[in-house]
Amino acid sequence: MTESIDVVGIVGSLRRQSFSHRLALALASVAPGGLSIDLVPIGGLALYNQDDDAEPPTPWREFRERVRRADAVLFVTPEYNRSIPGALKNAIDVGSRPYGQSAWSGKPCAVVSCSPGSQGAFGANHHLRQCLVFLNMPVMQQPEAYIGGVDKLVDEQGKFTNPSTGEFCRGVMSSFERWIRAVRSP
Amino acid sequence: MTESIDVVGIVGSLRRQSFSHRLALALASVAPGGLSIDLVPIGGLALYNQDDDAEPPTPWREFRERVRRADAVLFVTPEYNRSIPGALKNAIDVGSRPYGQSAWSGKPCAVVSCSPGSQGAFGANHHLRQCLVFLNMPVMQQPEAYIGGVDKLVDEQGKFTNPSTGEFCRGVMSSFERWIRAVRSP
Repeated sequence: MTESIDVVGIVGSLRRQSFSHRLALALASVAPGGLSIDLVPIGGLALYNQDDDAEPPTPWREFRERVRRADAVLFVTPEYNRSIPGALKNAIDVGSRPYGQSAWSGKPCAVVSCSPGSQGAFGANHHLRQCLVFLNMPVMQQPEAYIGGVDKLVDEQGKFTNPSTGEFCRGVMSSFERWIRAVRSP
Repeated sequence: MTESIDVVGIVGSLRRQSFSHRLALALASVAPGGLSIDLVPIGGLALYNQDDDAEPPTPWREFRERVRRADAVLFVTPEYNRSIPGALKNAIDVGSRPYGQSAWSGKPCAVVSCSPGSQGAFGANHHLRQCLVFLNMPVMQQPEAYIGGVDKLVDEQGKFTNPSTGEFCRGVMSSFERWIRAVRSP
């Protein structure tokens, strides 16, 4: 796999000016040329209900197909109540069904969490990692990325305002490319 | 507090015939007379988006008001992808906002998790407990309730088909009443 790698980026917050969205843009801006990052929205996905599996809503089908086409997944998430946002968990649930047809299975991924506070959404980051076990998504272990004080590190246009954060995130994305190529090589 | 205790019951699955819903009915049927259990649906809550806090959707306001009126909360949940369902996490997020006005704060609660498999949704149960820390909801520690094989223990009408499960759950609900009265007494 020397061609460009198609990465679906999932942002855990639905807020238009969310720090996670800004950070996702900033991460994309420092990604190596081999990664193509497409931020796929999750706010239009109805709450998962197994009763709807027989006739899934169009946004569910489109989301599942988009994830299925991807080579890898980048999660960028805040923490809500010491876990991942309900909207992100719902996207995970929607993508994982119908039973036995998960769109996530086998996709290499990375988790970057962020908060204005000091802990960088550690609780959300690791709750998400527990889900990734079941989803069979090989997740990059190092470097871990808990971006605390994110409101002071990335601006509204998704540009790093702190050079050392930018360098750290450049390293995260380079490692992610190597991880994806290692996991997906035959 | 010797009067009846108003308990909001939250079921984590939206499926009409969900095992969690059946189990919630069964738990209500063996609850002591001092507990009044009202199953409050969560499927009509739009995904939480902070941008909507200024003009919250009516279902959000009604849900928050209902929780705020309650003396206590009973969570009955399956496990989706080794965590709680997105729909349940979303209900938690909706009830916890706007910032500083959480409807959950201080409400004593209990968590009962269930699965057709053998582990009884242990992963979901404990992810939920991590959220309860932040929500400041004093949660009953013992007895823990991980109801494995639930499909063989409760019928479609929410009746226990296994007497020992019924007795165990009767004990859970009696302990829950004692817990609520202990936590809420001045």
